[in-house]
Amino acid sequence: MSDSDSEQVPSAHQPWPEISRQQLAQTRVFAVASATRQSPRTGKTHQFGLLECLDWVNVVALTADGLVVLVEQYRHGTQTVTLEVPGGMIDAGETPAEAASRELLEETGYRCAQVRQIGCVHPNPALQGNRCYTFVALGCTQERVPHFDATEDCLLRLEPVANLPGLVQSGAIGHALVVAALAHAWLSADLPLPAGLAGPR
Amino acid sequence: MSDSDSEQVPSAHQPWPEISRQQLAQTRVFAVASATRQSPRTGKTHQFGLLECLDWVNVVALTADGLVVLVEQYRHGTQTVTLEVPGGMIDAGETPAEAASRELLEETGYRCAQVRQIGCVHPNPALQGNRCYTFVALGCTQERVPHFDATEDCLLRLEPVANLPGLVQSGAIGHALVVAALAHAWLSADLPLPAGLAGPR
Repeated sequence: MSDSDSEQVPSAHQPWPEISRQQLAQTRVFAVASATRQSPRTGKTHQFGLLECLDWVNVVALTADGLVVLVEQYRHGTQTVTLEVPGGMIDAGETPAEAASRELLEETGYRCAQVRQIGCVHPNPALQGNRCYTFVALGCTQERVPHFDATEDCLLRLEPVANLPGLVQSGAIGHALVVAALAHAWLSADLPLPAGLAGPR
Repeated sequence: MSDSDSEQVPSAHQPWPEISRQQLAQTRVFAVASATRQSPRTGKTHQFGLLECLDWVNVVALTADGLVVLVEQYRHGTQTVTLEVPGGMIDAGETPAEAASRELLEETGYRCAQVRQIGCVHPNPALQGNRCYTFVALGCTQERVPHFDATEDCLLRLEPVANLPGLVQSGAIGHALVVAALAHAWLSADLPLPAGLAGPR
């Protein structure tokens, strides 16, 4: 890095103007584009692959007796069964809170007494502009059997909330967005952490 | 959902055989494919858009005096500046631990006395098969100025570790993979949580 480059480092905070954008592919849940953008630091243009997705929602759903409502689901990226909180895409015209209640009901058959947003993350700011909203759903009770579409096979799994830290640490819960959702639930104190984890090292 | 469908729900745990796969696009950091796979429950085939990426690494880097080493970086998915832990792609022939030390040095100029894996997540199991490894780096000291390539403008930012929960809760740290990395650091007790968060609701 030259000295003149160093002096211009604060332009990391300047946006990169977009010169052009081309769609490369379209799938059921995302589109792929290539954008040509100009560096505010060097003036040169570079290509960036981008993923265009709808916003998503995740729900940390708790029963009155201290259980969290989880789903086991076959996932096509990893080609494995994952253990997750319920969630999915926010439909057009739907608020994040409405999507949270709908996904919870569809994937688990549970309905909640109260749903409250506790966080919002960008799934991958490097590639995607979309958001994933995290909700906690309190007072959940099972109303019906789950209803899923042809590409979505979920199995319901209830776990005591005290098991969640161990499930994350062991990798049994390994979906980054689910781990992020649980982090928000721990920080909002909607989920208890085991005693002993709160003290400084 | 018909009764016969319900009885077959345990096949959520069966893999979906892949019938064919077609590459749709190739960018600098990922490829996009469309896979045709057969449901073990219904026998029908469906198309799935997949993202093929290298494995990634994130580093929660701590100094001896209780600071965490963060970077501010312009991100092209969100077109905003994000606050993140250092990280990036694992190069060919590199171990995750080597990548962690390299990315820390490149993006921040810090070298660590010790690096230890504390977690591993799938960034998005629905679309991607790749992993993101999380490391804690202890005893970090700055050795040189950061070195970044033409598309990567990072600004160094040091924060007391006690500020991290607030930065996540406020959304100032909003990259899901970074929130997941911090969750692993809290659970491994490499990072302290504020007193009062550990008790049950």
